[in-house]
Amino acid sequence: MTHSSPSSENDFLRLIDAHFTNSHPHMSIGRGDDCAHLKTPADTVLTTDIFLEDVHFRRSYFSPADIGHKALAVNISDIAGMGCTPLGFSLGLIIPASEGGLDGNFWDDMFAGMAALAKAYDIPLTGGDLSKGPCLGFSVTIWGTPQKTGRILTRGTANAGDVIFTCGNFGLARTGLFALEAKGTAAAPHYPDAVKAHLRPMPRVSEGVALAADEGVTSLMDLSDGLARDLPRLTGNGLGAALTIREDSLPEDIIAYCLAHDEDALSFAVLGGEDYALLGTCSPDTLPRIEASAGARAIGRATEDGGITINGISFSTQGFDHFAKHA
Amino acid sequence: MTHSSPSSENDFLRLIDAHFTNSHPHMSIGRGDDCAHLKTPADTVLTTDIFLEDVHFRRSYFSPADIGHKALAVNISDIAGMGCTPLGFSLGLIIPASEGGLDGNFWDDMFAGMAALAKAYDIPLTGGDLSKGPCLGFSVTIWGTPQKTGRILTRGTANAGDVIFTCGNFGLARTGLFALEAKGTAAAPHYPDAVKAHLRPMPRVSEGVALAADEGVTSLMDLSDGLARDLPRLTGNGLGAALTIREDSLPEDIIAYCLAHDEDALSFAVLGGEDYALLGTCSPDTLPRIEASAGARAIGRATEDGGITINGISFSTQGFDHFAKHA
Repeated sequence: MTHSSPSSENDFLRLIDAHFTNSHPHMSIGRGDDCAHLKTPADTVLTTDIFLEDVHFRRSYFSPADIGHKALAVNISDIAGMGCTPLGFSLGLIIPASEGGLDGNFWDDMFAGMAALAKAYDIPLTGGDLSKGPCLGFSVTIWGTPQKTGRILTRGTANAGDVIFTCGNFGLARTGLFALEAKGTAAAPHYPDAVKAHLRPMPRVSEGVALAADEGVTSLMDLSDGLARDLPRLTGNGLGAALTIREDSLPEDIIAYCLAHDEDALSFAVLGGEDYALLGTCSPDTLPRIEASAGARAIGRATEDGGITINGISFSTQGFDHFAKHA
Repeated sequence: MTHSSPSSENDFLRLIDAHFTNSHPHMSIGRGDDCAHLKTPADTVLTTDIFLEDVHFRRSYFSPADIGHKALAVNISDIAGMGCTPLGFSLGLIIPASEGGLDGNFWDDMFAGMAALAKAYDIPLTGGDLSKGPCLGFSVTIWGTPQKTGRILTRGTANAGDVIFTCGNFGLARTGLFALEAKGTAAAPHYPDAVKAHLRPMPRVSEGVALAADEGVTSLMDLSDGLARDLPRLTGNGLGAALTIREDSLPEDIIAYCLAHDEDALSFAVLGGEDYALLGTCSPDTLPRIEASAGARAIGRATEDGGITINGISFSTQGFDHFAKHA
């Protein structure tokens, strides 16, 4: 594509056109008018996420392509968390007023990372806005729709006794974040899976769709703030969660990092966010089916009593409380 | 509502809930899940705009309510520019990490300004994202749909010989901007209409809908970057514009400001942006109808030859060129 930095709005628009299709069956009018004109289904799910430099990512250890990938991936993950498939997205891009730190290929590489993911899900960039600003930033709005059955999975609809399950890891991205913050890109050879989990999360759309197709799945969300914070949002209704997690079931990188840094691996994993795994509940007899269809793994049960226990010990966002009384 | 500054995500969410309905016929699931679930028509128009402190607004002369109003108004205007009505919006809100400059009522007043406009158009805030960041900023995504006829008005579809028209003023918001930049809020008594045009633009949804209902209207957009920049985008097809504008037809504040500052009022008005008026084209026999239905005012004709003339003199984004040859 281009190998010099875009310096005007038109340069940016040309670069965007080089990376993103402006023609799609879901889109009658694409980029270039006041609005895009979309052919929308009767049911649409829609979300907006902000992704800011030094808040959500650092340029010191994210490659430009990692930044473009993750800005879009975290949004696709919200669609997956409803059991839906994405249809399109729009982008608000904040371009740092002083571009001193951005090398000549930054924008080309960043858009390439984003476009590769957009292409993998066949979703057009329908438009958006460009603005100078005080930092590099992204605001992605994405929309999608349920598959055949029309079923959409929500939070807050679990029943006591339901199995709590995850599709994907929890705690691995936090391990990557801590290692990258401490050592920068030098952390990669030591904790390769963890670093990848933080830099290149993969949304779990096909798993979400498989889960939505199963009537036994009672709730679903994407795991972005860590199990400890997200579980009460998932179950709702004042329900609690009795988790049963063997430490040796955790990914090696978490165990190795926690051993090296004198952390409790289970606690570290349950507090860890940004994995963009799926977290859901289902009736007990559903589990074998979704183990097969979505790679689900049981991690516990929804309980009448509020609060979280792990292997019988009370747990909060402050960690284990070995003195708390719990039923 | 609240009179102390929100200090946590939950505080913000409570404040948002106090200002914005989370229940609407178009919305099956509102704020609080991974995505909103919308009941969408077959045709949806959608756009995203960024609105950043010290790029698009200044806190020194925008009241908090002005900021909330304008962040949403400029987006509704994009819907109006397609001849459509808005259905809902999502908000990415960037909260300055250091809140030193924001007084205790800032957020309440800002949301009140935004909510008043949302209520006027009966559009729900369906969700979004909150993030700390280096400045105050907004990313609004808004969607809408055409009215009864299903007709959507676009750019680039004018014919040579069409009448060019506006609904609303051009140049008034720029006058307000210049006066506010020079004198701050003290400018208001001197240029009240201009200051209001900059701080509180009103989108022209009903006019856009009336225009879309008339088959004689051939193109439409919202006037955000000024006539000189927006006209070539409107007409497309390499067409030009022969404008006929009497200086004494301009709003008094423009004339007074330009007199006081030794500016050519016509040139100043044609270069002025951010009016969020509507700019369109129609067949000549359509004009009387849309004068009546949408308050349209003819300002010229689309011409085969590219370029812009005003009262026969060549004009560009650099201003008048009294030496240019023009047919």
